[in-house]
Amino acid sequence: MRTSIATVSLSGSLTEKLTAAARAGFDGVEIFENDLLASPLTPEEIRGLCADLGLRIDLYQPLRDLEAVPEDVFARNLRRAEHKFRVAQRLGADTVLVCSSVSPDAVDDDALAARQLRQLAERAADFGIRIAYEALAWGRYVNTYDHAWRIVEAADHPALGTCLDSFHILSRSRAPKDLEGIADIPGDKVFYLQLADAPLLAMDVLQWSRHYRCFPGQGDLDVAGLLRQVLRTGYAGPLSLEVFNDVFRQAEAGPTAVDALRSLLVLQETVGEGELPPAAAPTGIAFAELVTPDVEPAAALLTALGFTRTGRHRGKPVDLWEQGAARVLLNTGPGARRDGTVLAAVGLEPPDPAAAARRAEALLAPVLPRRRSTGDVLLDAVAAPDGTELFFCATDRPPLPSWTTDFAPTAEQAEENARILGFDHLALSQPWHQFDEAALFHRGVLGLDALQSVDVADPYGLLRSRAFTSSEGAVRIALAVGPAPGDEHARAQHIALATDDIVAAARRFRAAGGHVLPMPANYYDDLAARFEFAPGELETYQELDILYDHDSHGAFRHCYTHTLGRVFFELTQRVSGYRGYGAQNAPVRLTAQHGLGAAPRTAIG
Amino acid sequence: MRTSIATVSLSGSLTEKLTAAARAGFDGVEIFENDLLASPLTPEEIRGLCADLGLRIDLYQPLRDLEAVPEDVFARNLRRAEHKFRVAQRLGADTVLVCSSVSPDAVDDDALAARQLRQLAERAADFGIRIAYEALAWGRYVNTYDHAWRIVEAADHPALGTCLDSFHILSRSRAPKDLEGIADIPGDKVFYLQLADAPLLAMDVLQWSRHYRCFPGQGDLDVAGLLRQVLRTGYAGPLSLEVFNDVFRQAEAGPTAVDALRSLLVLQETVGEGELPPAAAPTGIAFAELVTPDVEPAAALLTALGFTRTGRHRGKPVDLWEQGAARVLLNTGPGARRDGTVLAAVGLEPPDPAAAARRAEALLAPVLPRRRSTGDVLLDAVAAPDGTELFFCATDRPPLPSWTTDFAPTAEQAEENARILGFDHLALSQPWHQFDEAALFHRGVLGLDALQSVDVADPYGLLRSRAFTSSEGAVRIALAVGPAPGDEHARAQHIALATDDIVAAARRFRAAGGHVLPMPANYYDDLAARFEFAPGELETYQELDILYDHDSHGAFRHCYTHTLGRVFFELTQRVSGYRGYGAQNAPVRLTAQHGLGAAPRTAIG
Repeated sequence: MRTSIATVSLSGSLTEKLTAAARAGFDGVEIFENDLLASPLTPEEIRGLCADLGLRIDLYQPLRDLEAVPEDVFARNLRRAEHKFRVAQRLGADTVLVCSSVSPDAVDDDALAARQLRQLAERAADFGIRIAYEALAWGRYVNTYDHAWRIVEAADHPALGTCLDSFHILSRSRAPKDLEGIADIPGDKVFYLQLADAPLLAMDVLQWSRHYRCFPGQGDLDVAGLLRQVLRTGYAGPLSLEVFNDVFRQAEAGPTAVDALRSLLVLQETVGEGELPPAAAPTGIAFAELVTPDVEPAAALLTALGFTRTGRHRGKPVDLWEQGAARVLLNTGPGARRDGTVLAAVGLEPPDPAAAARRAEALLAPVLPRRRSTGDVLLDAVAAPDGTELFFCATDRPPLPSWTTDFAPTAEQAEENARILGFDHLALSQPWHQFDEAALFHRGVLGLDALQSVDVADPYGLLRSRAFTSSEGAVRIALAVGPAPGDEHARAQHIALATDDIVAAARRFRAAGGHVLPMPANYYDDLAARFEFAPGELETYQELDILYDHDSHGAFRHCYTHTLGRVFFELTQRVSGYRGYGAQNAPVRLTAQHGLGAAPRTAIG
Repeated sequence: MRTSIATVSLSGSLTEKLTAAARAGFDGVEIFENDLLASPLTPEEIRGLCADLGLRIDLYQPLRDLEAVPEDVFARNLRRAEHKFRVAQRLGADTVLVCSSVSPDAVDDDALAARQLRQLAERAADFGIRIAYEALAWGRYVNTYDHAWRIVEAADHPALGTCLDSFHILSRSRAPKDLEGIADIPGDKVFYLQLADAPLLAMDVLQWSRHYRCFPGQGDLDVAGLLRQVLRTGYAGPLSLEVFNDVFRQAEAGPTAVDALRSLLVLQETVGEGELPPAAAPTGIAFAELVTPDVEPAAALLTALGFTRTGRHRGKPVDLWEQGAARVLLNTGPGARRDGTVLAAVGLEPPDPAAAARRAEALLAPVLPRRRSTGDVLLDAVAAPDGTELFFCATDRPPLPSWTTDFAPTAEQAEENARILGFDHLALSQPWHQFDEAALFHRGVLGLDALQSVDVADPYGLLRSRAFTSSEGAVRIALAVGPAPGDEHARAQHIALATDDIVAAARRFRAAGGHVLPMPANYYDDLAARFEFAPGELETYQELDILYDHDSHGAFRHCYTHTLGRVFFELTQRVSGYRGYGAQNAPVRLTAQHGLGAAPRTAIG
């Protein structure tokens, strides 16, 4: 279907917004009145710019507070409307949006509303303009799509139709049966469709709408269910995004426009439209690649964790370290940044790596140049919104070429009893402006399922965290975002390793000289109040700085290494199907990592 | 009264929080459990630290989900509670907070709740601990203060009392009569009082409470009305602040603690307690002082606006420029910053400058060293939260010494017909973390009235703006804050001048070579749709780039100069008592100032 985006959804000047929409690949735009007012371009110049950019102006909006008012007020409103029809005409926009009235002048009289909207449509028709009448969720009398449609039907004018907006409809009712009436509207009377998602928030709908809308797939609303109903009407207009969001208002328009178009591509796939290579979640993490300017501390940390250097890349300064199914690449090549060790790349193991790469490319993920030196297996890679390189690869799955063949084996054998089974999860702090985009990316591009967001108290501000998993839990990626735009170099990344015996793994790590993040005694005192432990169990946790949590499924034991650059490791043990990530313990961990909880216990007092 | 603050209200480690509270001058603290859990200090060490800092530990909190549950669950809860009583005992805290239950285990049975709370109190008494039982606004069955008190009364144990929290009470009902029941509670059964304010937000009360509480006087709740009721009980405990706020969580603990204590000092004054020098709003703005590294462009701008250099400071490189009642100081002294022209100081004209200074000092405003050179009039000055220096002065009001006598007159005479009457308002962008603090400062310290906040769309993010005025409107200061912590040097400041004829003033400015910020043609096209103008009126506005607004009182005409460093000027004309600040026009102005609307109108198309 054709795609469109309201200029209010993007940041910057009108020219920046239009350029970003066009570059992302949108077919059209809705011109938001305020963007036009503040622009130095005349309507004709805006029209010309859009034409140059290959953008159709699908809608000019909004007209407000027009209908169901006393005749003298309506006469003034009509004058105002005519003025705007002229602007729309100069823009070359054939449709103008009219929102249902919130004015104290309006009366509860559908017949009057229909009569006045008909008059408005007659006048609009003189300008070659159509009116799309939309029920605002907070409209004074008209606030549901079926009410707006009844008025449009009664007005019965060819230049008058309705505009459906997923936020206005779904914010009032999320019951599927309440959407069924949509399909009864004739498609040629649905003049326009505006799409936005939103997280579920218990707040005033006006505030919710003005600050927290997001692109479909980033929130909690069933935008796809609504779109299915709209398509049953026979609607043939564009899918248009109208998103008011405080973060997007600040973010760079270019990436936001790409994120926006991606949301419509995924949405169309969800309702059976469009042709994307199918989604197939990766079945595992092939490797995590650390880029480091100094190999020694990273190698020491991996060694203490029980990893063995089992391979050396045949053409680049990259070592393969293994323990169980966990594989870590240590890259000391020229890409190594001056600011220390970074988790720069992740190898994913999709069922069909080439298909996964095609899907990512179709969904506008930035494709990275293929890396190859003599003999290299070609790997497709894309950049995640936070810049992490994602490689689509196969590990020892003939006939697929295995990336491991690029590595010449060393003489060293992986240790047998380091207790590490593989990766439990990867946790990546996100840039502030990219959190919603990253959510859509991990769901839509990678095919992972999203869990609910949780708030975590850091001593210096609240963090938000959200986990993405494959249905079997073989891939778990937890994304976190800080309270405000901050220092890129401070964004922590961590690699959580799964063990079958965390006590043994933690002892082994310490014995090998590893530094565990120390936990405060008060934490263990609290555990004693909250849980019952077997004799000696809690004492062991305290001795080894192991944290504990449980949910309705099972228990979680975990501990942390010190941090190297931006990266630290976590040792974890899940018991009886625990599903979380120890978020309950994050404030204590974060305090310790700020160096605030990690002082030697005898230093003060 | 004694003052206290919950550690959750401040940012950082427990040690940082305690230090900040003590330095600000609080008498005590509530230790929030999570802060203790994450701290490397033992409870004894925390006790010792508080004692060293001169802080009493007034409360340990919270215990949750204890009462009105089946007996087997209660047995487990009692075990958990005993554990926390031991912690409280080690802390030397004699009171533990118990919140009303939100647990699915709880039943709606007041008799059971009372019986179990009595058992809890008996156990607490063994440890020398009192229980303060508080109704959470979202408690499952107990969510009003009177309900909690009925249960406490029925339980009838000396170690059991109630805790009153202004947020939990006022977030549910702001009707004064609903507060009258408070005074019927015996004061010795009010074991604790927690104070927080909040802006009125139509959102889920739990989210409202967790993210948007603020210090009394910063929000919209009638915390003083509630405190009056509590004092009628005979309550003799501390006034304690418990504020969950996303911004304060990020802000530096030291200034937040000062801001917090200031809120309690003002609150006590409001209810007739404490002894502050009385508030008296300034009756005018004596001067605005620009500090500039380069006098030439600033002098040119002032000259074009019709100002005349009428005086030269007798001891410093500071010139006095005058036009009407507007006085601008141009300071090129060693304090001039490298980053350009800044509005660094404001002279306020309080009825009694010395009393105003004493009040500011009593309210913890940072007192600035008195500036004097030979012959100088001594001026008291304090720093506003954004660093602006505020001088308390008198202008030609014998027998008070006038600051103007420090300036030697030049030979120049102020121009007669530049149409500028004086200052209309000053507008100061605030650092992100200081907006609420600045609100309290302008109300509490300076005695100005606060208007409602308004949101203003900047092309790169939403701004929030709030005006503070003296009751006669002689002093108007508008504070604005950006969407996120940002570049300090980008914070705009502007000086709005009042004229009796903006058309004449704008023509004069242009004729004198002044540069007016150009406005887009689309803006005037929209004005034509929205308002009716006399013949030629709109054309004049467009010719001179004058903006127009009106409210229910009257009309507002204004235009802007170009920006020098961080500072620009606005020419304004209020007609028939217009009360606003042209916020409706701010998005167009902001776009133009970003250079996005200011391109020559023929450049594109």
